[in-house]
Amino acid sequence: MSALDAAGLDDEVEQSEAWFRSHLRTLVELPTVSPGATDDRDILPGVIAAKELLASIGADAEIVGTRGTPAMVARLRHPDARAHVVVYNHVDVQPADGSAWTSDPFEFLAEAHPERGYLYRGRGATDDKGPALCAVRGAKIAIDRGARIDVTFVWESEEEVGSPHFIDVINARKEALSADAVIVSDTIWPTADQPAISTGLRGALHATLRLRTAGKEAHSGLVGGVARNPIKELCKLANDIENSDFWHSGVCAPDEDEIASFLAAGFDPDYFMHAHDLHHVTTRDPLEMMLRIWTRPTFELHGIAGGYQGRGTKTIVPEAAELKCSFRLVPDQDPMAIADSLVAFVRKANPEVEVALGGSFRPYRAATTGIVHNAIFDALHATTGRCPVTVREGGSIGAVPMIARELGIPVHFLPLSLPDHGYHAPNEYFDWRQARIGIGSFARVFATLGS
Amino acid sequence: MSALDAAGLDDEVEQSEAWFRSHLRTLVELPTVSPGATDDRDILPGVIAAKELLASIGADAEIVGTRGTPAMVARLRHPDARAHVVVYNHVDVQPADGSAWTSDPFEFLAEAHPERGYLYRGRGATDDKGPALCAVRGAKIAIDRGARIDVTFVWESEEEVGSPHFIDVINARKEALSADAVIVSDTIWPTADQPAISTGLRGALHATLRLRTAGKEAHSGLVGGVARNPIKELCKLANDIENSDFWHSGVCAPDEDEIASFLAAGFDPDYFMHAHDLHHVTTRDPLEMMLRIWTRPTFELHGIAGGYQGRGTKTIVPEAAELKCSFRLVPDQDPMAIADSLVAFVRKANPEVEVALGGSFRPYRAATTGIVHNAIFDALHATTGRCPVTVREGGSIGAVPMIARELGIPVHFLPLSLPDHGYHAPNEYFDWRQARIGIGSFARVFATLGS
Repeated sequence: MSALDAAGLDDEVEQSEAWFRSHLRTLVELPTVSPGATDDRDILPGVIAAKELLASIGADAEIVGTRGTPAMVARLRHPDARAHVVVYNHVDVQPADGSAWTSDPFEFLAEAHPERGYLYRGRGATDDKGPALCAVRGAKIAIDRGARIDVTFVWESEEEVGSPHFIDVINARKEALSADAVIVSDTIWPTADQPAISTGLRGALHATLRLRTAGKEAHSGLVGGVARNPIKELCKLANDIENSDFWHSGVCAPDEDEIASFLAAGFDPDYFMHAHDLHHVTTRDPLEMMLRIWTRPTFELHGIAGGYQGRGTKTIVPEAAELKCSFRLVPDQDPMAIADSLVAFVRKANPEVEVALGGSFRPYRAATTGIVHNAIFDALHATTGRCPVTVREGGSIGAVPMIARELGIPVHFLPLSLPDHGYHAPNEYFDWRQARIGIGSFARVFATLGS
Repeated sequence: MSALDAAGLDDEVEQSEAWFRSHLRTLVELPTVSPGATDDRDILPGVIAAKELLASIGADAEIVGTRGTPAMVARLRHPDARAHVVVYNHVDVQPADGSAWTSDPFEFLAEAHPERGYLYRGRGATDDKGPALCAVRGAKIAIDRGARIDVTFVWESEEEVGSPHFIDVINARKEALSADAVIVSDTIWPTADQPAISTGLRGALHATLRLRTAGKEAHSGLVGGVARNPIKELCKLANDIENSDFWHSGVCAPDEDEIASFLAAGFDPDYFMHAHDLHHVTTRDPLEMMLRIWTRPTFELHGIAGGYQGRGTKTIVPEAAELKCSFRLVPDQDPMAIADSLVAFVRKANPEVEVALGGSFRPYRAATTGIVHNAIFDALHATTGRCPVTVREGGSIGAVPMIARELGIPVHFLPLSLPDHGYHAPNEYFDWRQARIGIGSFARVFATLGS
């Protein structure tokens, strides 16, 4: 912060609410649901809006095509930059189907809130459009106030489906992305009042298991006992996978220091359950909860399609069923090795089941020392008045391990979202308190790195 | 057949095609899907049409209300009747959702067919509206030609959901239904060319298992490992039920004589698989197939609702899931005892799972001797030129064991449907060859019993 006046900076952050709200409204109201779930054409208007936004603050902004949907790359320059940082975010959002939303997911709503200032509702508000805007505003403030730094914003549009074509962006703009560090804000604090720095991501492997046993559904009286029931067989297969150990191989357990940092994180089981609206959990022991979410792999079933799900009764043996599932993987598991094991396991357990592998991403460990880490630590400390803790993240960001490996640049995290914001959940929101912390923290980090 | 001229009767049967087609069209095009699955108001127009149809041939027809949807009861009289037979059918049909239908399920289509004369397509054509009309036409022909018999037609509207209120019809019309015998045609032949008399029905027990673990769906990265996944737990529970033995208790294995009759039935695995469009089966041994369908209980999963089933990926832990399932039960299993065991099993295996019991019906064994059985045997022999075999039925008809127990009247079967007709399946049809056999067989049975 040596180069900047902290009080003046805070004033400028405070005056950013109208700017922030206006641009978040624009981005949220463009329904950029990830490719695959809806029509990919919905993505492009969101990427174009992102480019226009970055151009409007003076960045050199462009759209970079991929084999999938495009990314926006924009560099905001200081004429005498001493450092270059890449900030990664994404404009795509999770689908928002279902009746659990109390408002239109793609209508932006701002509500006054006694502790958070304002809540900003809408799909993508916290994941990841709100945090993305924090970095933009923070960079603009820092550079305008003299921080000698270039910041390149990379906003991709396939994060929620595992960044399958982000490698194209890296390859197309290798030089432009060759920075001193990469910062990602797309992770969360353990509680609403405990700032944190994430130091690890789970990886993931998506798969769809399909089984067809007949050309049409049949009467369960006439054929039951002889017809093979695809739902029953997929249930058995899922249960067999759950009980097998192939997807536990390669797990590196956390060491004592890391467990000590978890214990200092203030993880609150009640808040966690309340934030995610969980009625029942597999454990209520705080450390055990953290270990299960952050350091252990999981196998989750997202849905089973097929058969009859309407009102009343329909006594059929379905002709086909489809199980959508995924694994979360942890350091040092290799998604490709787990994928091979899954295919081999299914082939042996039920040869008629077709395995369609989806996106996969490696787990990631971040450095917990160095100039960038310290700058983030100091910035969060200054904006919140509390020392951030180091934790891990249960989610996955496909681009992060890719950036680290392909560009050889360390990736650091500056988390801004809270568990109660509802990542991937109905009625997602972001809030002004976190936005203010985010803008102020990014501005401070850029000021520090540019000095 | 002593009272009637067989050649003249056959001519009259042959001339019934226009009558049959016209009335089947009327009934099929009234979408009488069973209560529960759709709006119950759809049922009444079908019951009214049935009453009008029976009144138009001179029967005393009325609609009998129940606590559920009503039944039609109609008596066609001979002024000097010596016998009284009840014929049971149902006007309700299975739901016809989904895209597997190649035409509107409730649009009646008649197509010329080289072997079958005509195929009559539409939901309910074979289950059970076509066979119901065969009995009506057969009775009208027999009585008009001098058969001294009264025939009471009982068409209920809740068969496909287990006849939960048929007891109300029995109680309201106990005297009117006190006949010498009851005949039911709602069963099938083992192959397209092998007439058969069913001698047993499987019972059934329907249940829905529900589990809610959260108030809303959650991000599988943020909560996976701690959140309880309701789909995964229902899969495990289904697998545990499948592997448990509580639903096998009370099974009475077939004796050597019955197995010998099965072996004589001409059961053809290839035809069976083709008729039901099964690509994979649990066995291809003919006797083993018959034993599994007719003499052993099954546990079937009809569908699992909950979670994400759309295109692409949505990495959530669902908040709730619902498993629709049923057991088929065989003589001498008691559905209520199995229901108690199911509830106890689930309570122990996963106490948070709610068990909603649906309809249940007892299994049934029919007599294989006596005047009525012999009349059916002779009638099918005369109309097909082949000796019928005695087999069992894998399906269930809730009213049959109820009639036998409440009224103390033996229930016999005169099957007319074929496996290829598609009971409960998309693109259901009936055909004129089977209708002709049905009308002729019913006319002969009534003539015999009225002589």
